[in-house]
Amino acid sequence: MTAPNRATLWGRVLADELAKGGLEAVCIAPGSRSTPLTVTFAAHDDIDVYSHLDERSAAYFALGRARRTGEPTALVCTSGTAAANFHPAVIEADQARVPLLVLTADRPPELRDSGANQTVDQVKLYGDAVRWDAELPEPEPDERKVRSLRTTAVRALTETTGVPPGPVHLNCPFRKPLEPIDVPGDVPESFAETLAGGGRDGAFVETTAGERTLSDDQYRPLVRALADADRPLIVAGPADPVDLTRLEPADVVAVAERVGAPILADPLSGLRFGPHIGDDSADGPVYGGYDAYVDELPDPDVVVRFGASPTSKPLRHALRDANARQFLIDPAGDWREATFTATDLLAAAPGTVFDGLRERLEAEAGADATDSEIEAEWLAAFDDAERRHWEIRNEALTASALESEPFEGAILASVFSNAPNPATVFVSNSMPIRDADRFGRPRDAELTVLANRGASGIDGITSTALGAGSATDDPLVLVTGDLAFYHDSNGLLAVDRCDVDATIVLLDNDGGGIFHKLPIEEFDPPFTQQFKTPHSLEFDALGELYGLEFERVTPADFTAAYRRSLETAGTQVLAVEFDSEANHRRRDALAGRVTDAVASVLEDDAVDSSD
Amino acid sequence: MTAPNRATLWGRVLADELAKGGLEAVCIAPGSRSTPLTVTFAAHDDIDVYSHLDERSAAYFALGRARRTGEPTALVCTSGTAAANFHPAVIEADQARVPLLVLTADRPPELRDSGANQTVDQVKLYGDAVRWDAELPEPEPDERKVRSLRTTAVRALTETTGVPPGPVHLNCPFRKPLEPIDVPGDVPESFAETLAGGGRDGAFVETTAGERTLSDDQYRPLVRALADADRPLIVAGPADPVDLTRLEPADVVAVAERVGAPILADPLSGLRFGPHIGDDSADGPVYGGYDAYVDELPDPDVVVRFGASPTSKPLRHALRDANARQFLIDPAGDWREATFTATDLLAAAPGTVFDGLRERLEAEAGADATDSEIEAEWLAAFDDAERRHWEIRNEALTASALESEPFEGAILASVFSNAPNPATVFVSNSMPIRDADRFGRPRDAELTVLANRGASGIDGITSTALGAGSATDDPLVLVTGDLAFYHDSNGLLAVDRCDVDATIVLLDNDGGGIFHKLPIEEFDPPFTQQFKTPHSLEFDALGELYGLEFERVTPADFTAAYRRSLETAGTQVLAVEFDSEANHRRRDALAGRVTDAVASVLEDDAVDSSD
Repeated sequence: MTAPNRATLWGRVLADELAKGGLEAVCIAPGSRSTPLTVTFAAHDDIDVYSHLDERSAAYFALGRARRTGEPTALVCTSGTAAANFHPAVIEADQARVPLLVLTADRPPELRDSGANQTVDQVKLYGDAVRWDAELPEPEPDERKVRSLRTTAVRALTETTGVPPGPVHLNCPFRKPLEPIDVPGDVPESFAETLAGGGRDGAFVETTAGERTLSDDQYRPLVRALADADRPLIVAGPADPVDLTRLEPADVVAVAERVGAPILADPLSGLRFGPHIGDDSADGPVYGGYDAYVDELPDPDVVVRFGASPTSKPLRHALRDANARQFLIDPAGDWREATFTATDLLAAAPGTVFDGLRERLEAEAGADATDSEIEAEWLAAFDDAERRHWEIRNEALTASALESEPFEGAILASVFSNAPNPATVFVSNSMPIRDADRFGRPRDAELTVLANRGASGIDGITSTALGAGSATDDPLVLVTGDLAFYHDSNGLLAVDRCDVDATIVLLDNDGGGIFHKLPIEEFDPPFTQQFKTPHSLEFDALGELYGLEFERVTPADFTAAYRRSLETAGTQVLAVEFDSEANHRRRDALAGRVTDAVASVLEDDAVDSSD
Repeated sequence: MTAPNRATLWGRVLADELAKGGLEAVCIAPGSRSTPLTVTFAAHDDIDVYSHLDERSAAYFALGRARRTGEPTALVCTSGTAAANFHPAVIEADQARVPLLVLTADRPPELRDSGANQTVDQVKLYGDAVRWDAELPEPEPDERKVRSLRTTAVRALTETTGVPPGPVHLNCPFRKPLEPIDVPGDVPESFAETLAGGGRDGAFVETTAGERTLSDDQYRPLVRALADADRPLIVAGPADPVDLTRLEPADVVAVAERVGAPILADPLSGLRFGPHIGDDSADGPVYGGYDAYVDELPDPDVVVRFGASPTSKPLRHALRDANARQFLIDPAGDWREATFTATDLLAAAPGTVFDGLRERLEAEAGADATDSEIEAEWLAAFDDAERRHWEIRNEALTASALESEPFEGAILASVFSNAPNPATVFVSNSMPIRDADRFGRPRDAELTVLANRGASGIDGITSTALGAGSATDDPLVLVTGDLAFYHDSNGLLAVDRCDVDATIVLLDNDGGGIFHKLPIEEFDPPFTQQFKTPHSLEFDALGELYGLEFERVTPADFTAAYRRSLETAGTQVLAVEFDSEANHRRRDALAGRVTDAVASVLEDDAVDSSD
């Protein structure tokens, strides 16, 4: 590795090792101190560079890309508050286990706390939110320093996909000249011949990461419990990005069918959509309508859970209140268990566990549990409830019903049922993800459904979605609310700048519709001004600013407009206006109808059984 | 203090103590977990509430208000990444010593690290950037807990204006119900009768904060050095907000005149503008054009500095290279000294030091130093240089010159010379602050000039300016570049929502013009795409989105449009387009002409002296 000066040497060695380690993309916000990194990445053949102007949006874009691929994405910024703008996305990456490599340029260490301009204390800036953090040694063509630099680069990249994956922070101090200006003697040409200067053919350190697996002995209690269960249940929560790429839905389905367990599949689990879903999703074993009816069904006696905490609050509460043995599978052995109901924690990758479980159940005599009457009733109850659920919802969601009673849930239903196969569907927090959970009907299509559910912020939704969209050729759909759309309006710059095509569905209820769900609704003031916060923004102007096609559509016309957009190149914003209060009442009324219907079905069943 | 439940009690006690301690304003971003705080602040008679939708903008708005007033401003957000969005402004508040009280709502402690939704580790979220941080005790009508709560509230507020002032973080966990719902027995009525429940008439703890002052003995070396100096110099750097309200410019001027010291006044020092400036500013003792000529003048032998590091790089380098005794006055005794040239650090408030210095110099026989020939020449050199500087600049900045050679510096010159008296002028980082330094001519008008020079980010410029504008009835002028305008575009929502009138001068050179100043300009690619980053945004659309009057003006027409805007209610954006490269060349050429002129004046003087 030759370089005209030591700062450039540092940038080149770092990029060289990261590329050899498999890094494919970096998001860069402009700045001077980061020049050695920016110049090198921009010139690197194997690394795609996405340029952003707002560091907060840059970080969420990188997060989205890493979330979609499960592969690390890097971030570069200059010194100062720029680095703090990465903080929200770093927290999301931490909690959602997304591999993110944060490279913050810094001034030389002796300027720290000296009153120097644009110099803040960047060491440990993200606290405990990162898996690992380090400061690069100061640039110098010194054999040990460069070996340390190469090792640090590989290590940092590896840590992002460790167990669990997450963000890693490297603080990178540089002194002038920052540009690739020739400084005679600064980096002797002979240095390229050293091991450190030349590096190795591949990564400086090839890392082989083992996976946590269970032994036969460790499988036994789980196999036994499932085989003996009368009402076993599998709950698939939001998947970690790396697990999403590794879990085989067929394994989970095979286990479920073997033991007679319904699979309640969160829309973010990777299990609600896909080729493993049959033509008639109500035949199970994957169910999606549980939010409305899980309360009405009998308690499970054995639960196997994986992924993060489910989106559905009724489901979380049902699990909390069930007197069941609950196995929680977590690849990192973390206790993601806010309801404190797990009885058994299995520290192993869900994909591996279900693979092994399938094998062992198939080998185990008497494990075929679907033959008892209780078990048959258990499955039938889910089938009936799921079928009633979608029947009632379909009636309510017809175009003619929508004309008289516009309802946001219908949009989410249409988004999923009309999404192309394959597609990436990104759903905002607040109401959209809850409606996705309720109205996204399981379907035999490869829909990768993503959301920022680690910390559930609405601050970087657009950027995260566009970052996810940039990672593959799949069509991208983003469903967002007006507050999230406003919050990350800067993120729209990436549509043109990073060349992402999307269909953006904007559910505009002029403020925080979700607050109608909460008791604060009864206290106005301050409800309207401080919680619902109507803003009256006419978002057409954002379409104009960022060169997007902006179309206002009625709820009844939505599906036609949505299909048109999916067939059209470029990015369209389909804005659908709703009255959040009326919408909230309709959501409640509809949930009530499903619950009543399921309750009456169950009652009939009970009468039948007692005959 | 009565309350329908313990969460509401906590909100009420906290607001009660903060109001009694003098808190007058709070910026709130909507959220559910923060309900107990929001409800109480919104109902409080003595506290103004500013509602924001983007927490990053909210934090910068609060920062601006606190920066303008020197008084603490509070911030409220919900749990999760919302709190991390405050981080950039917290860092700026730390480095610029701005009193900011950050209240982050949180979920109950037992949910931390449990996988619960929207729950992140908020304890010590801002690391070392805060003066103090604490977590509130969990709400409960317990005598000791509430005394602790009251004490913590007063203490937090006091710490924001400590020595040095800065941000303070209180993490505030709440459990449901969060709304003021009646929970019988949760807070016994009798609790209001206890000392903790009732609080005291004033603050729970009245705090008296002493100020660091120098003793006679400690003054002596400074008095001696100034009296004996041949070429004494006073350098007023960017002022801390609290100092800005306490320093008497007349004291500094009196000292300067007594000892024959020019005052080089940064535009952010509080000394460049004001009634202490005479009709002809070139008569001294306050000079503003030094950036162009300080290199050409003789070295000072004694320097007295206060405030942060000066904006002018030539001035910083001249101070670094001078072989002078340099007194640095800092109220906190911090070593804000990035050039490491101070010989004496005085830990005392600049206002107090100059008051005492004036008194002692006036009492000291022989301290009147302006009678020696060397000293007279020293002052005359500054007078000549300053006069030549403004003459040349004025020629270059006439409307007719601007028609052929548009130049951003002319806009800054006009902004300051035509600003109403009084006015608040907020200047963005990057080029505008540097041009304000070069082209803002000292003037007998009460202009409060502010910028975010703590960490020098461009991420919250608009919000900080609007926050500053919200604090007084003074007209508000914001000078910003296009990248900063884009970065904080969300901040424009506050114009309507927080009812701030402003004249926004947008210098649009389509990207990062400042990078033309740097050697990276020679390396394209990546210069254009990764550094200058042209975006081609037509900002008219932002005017439309936020209901602002948006006008494009030519450089030659700027002054007329600016005057019109200042006389018009509502917020106007005056967008002036420049070619950043041509602009950069003109800035350099103009600086060169001034430097040459000053050099030739000095040469003439030298010839005169040797006659």
